[in-house]
Amino acid sequence: MSAQAAERPAPGKVVCIGLGPGDPELMSLRAHRHLMAAERIAYFRKAGHPGKARLIVEGMIPDQAEEWAMEYPVTTEIPFDSPRYRALLAEFYDGWAARLAAGALRGGVVVLCEGDPFFYGSFMHLHARLPAGLVEVVPGIPGMAGCWTATNLPITWGDDVLTVLPATLPEDDLGRRIADSDALVVMKVGRNLEKLRRALSRHGRLADAWLVEHGTMRDERVRRLTEVEGKVPYFSIVLVHGRGRRP
Amino acid sequence: MSAQAAERPAPGKVVCIGLGPGDPELMSLRAHRHLMAAERIAYFRKAGHPGKARLIVEGMIPDQAEEWAMEYPVTTEIPFDSPRYRALLAEFYDGWAARLAAGALRGGVVVLCEGDPFFYGSFMHLHARLPAGLVEVVPGIPGMAGCWTATNLPITWGDDVLTVLPATLPEDDLGRRIADSDALVVMKVGRNLEKLRRALSRHGRLADAWLVEHGTMRDERVRRLTEVEGKVPYFSIVLVHGRGRRP
Repeated sequence: MSAQAAERPAPGKVVCIGLGPGDPELMSLRAHRHLMAAERIAYFRKAGHPGKARLIVEGMIPDQAEEWAMEYPVTTEIPFDSPRYRALLAEFYDGWAARLAAGALRGGVVVLCEGDPFFYGSFMHLHARLPAGLVEVVPGIPGMAGCWTATNLPITWGDDVLTVLPATLPEDDLGRRIADSDALVVMKVGRNLEKLRRALSRHGRLADAWLVEHGTMRDERVRRLTEVEGKVPYFSIVLVHGRGRRP
Repeated sequence: MSAQAAERPAPGKVVCIGLGPGDPELMSLRAHRHLMAAERIAYFRKAGHPGKARLIVEGMIPDQAEEWAMEYPVTTEIPFDSPRYRALLAEFYDGWAARLAAGALRGGVVVLCEGDPFFYGSFMHLHARLPAGLVEVVPGIPGMAGCWTATNLPITWGDDVLTVLPATLPEDDLGRRIADSDALVVMKVGRNLEKLRRALSRHGRLADAWLVEHGTMRDERVRRLTEVEGKVPYFSIVLVHGRGRRP
């Protein structure tokens, strides 16, 4: 074996670790083990922002680790269903999938992901582009579980039906699903708050609804939706708890 | 201060820790911290069984910790909607809530819970009976997240709607909800498998369905539902992955 071959690192993997809802102590033991051993750490962020996942691990990154910030080329500046948006994002994911694969061959890359990677995460667009054998996903506590824990009330009991839906849906669609569920988790609230409020009100569920901002984080805020005025962040979650059987 | 008062332990809490889907390394750092410091550890189990939560922490219980097995007086022997079932369970939860409160005053009790405590967990029946200030809940990775990670496919993309429902629902109800969801998680499959299979088939989703048994555990088994024959465990989960937008 040549000296050069001996120095080449053993190939590793692209390991995407779910970091959970925001409190760093809510990451799993396995996610923590991968983070502590990481030589390369990649994470998504919007240009000019620190990145939500990166914020969670602030102060925990090993000294020797390289950081790879994967900056979205565009977020809400152009419509997500336009051909230009799709082309820009596809090129972005293609490029990063190739770089992550190269990083894996040089010893491994850890990709940070808030919440659970397979639950509305951006990593899945990289996952779909990488060879299956090169990738490992470590699940995390989804953001919504951090939010319902923050309300200190169970979200589902017994045989409750839970619907998870984005507030981006048309108002009638929201209303129909609100009427047909025992428990609700509504994501992507932000600019859709008034539409969601009308739909909840029409089906008699407004008084049962809670708004949670930054669940489990230092700036966590939990309010009944009836007490909320003004704007709320895009990543706020609205919850309606189930009322299933209880002995 | 008398010698007796000095020896009295500081009052603690009833801390319910979500242990995640089954692999012990998927518990959170916080759950692990509480487990390692526990003086009293309580968990539910069916008489004659070790208990699912207790199995997850096998080999991890501190030497000095007392174990409190909370044995259900009845599980599936009598109908869950009968007055006798309700009365037996209510008495059981009342009794254990009182014992846990006493344990908290003697220094604290850790209650083990598989998955996430507020997501279809039994602990919520104790939570509802305990003074709010005496209880702390540590969220966990829900069993369903362990199961979709085991399939190595994202469960939801973009604006997908996810429905979580128990297979105990009537067949027509199951069918209606299957037809109206992008992604599905069906719990409590067991004896309801054939009914669920018919409902999926009628709405053209059978070929997309996966059955996961013991997700993330040593005996994990992941199959397409079309390949499943014979009986499956009660805690099996059926998944249909969403197909939302992807650049």
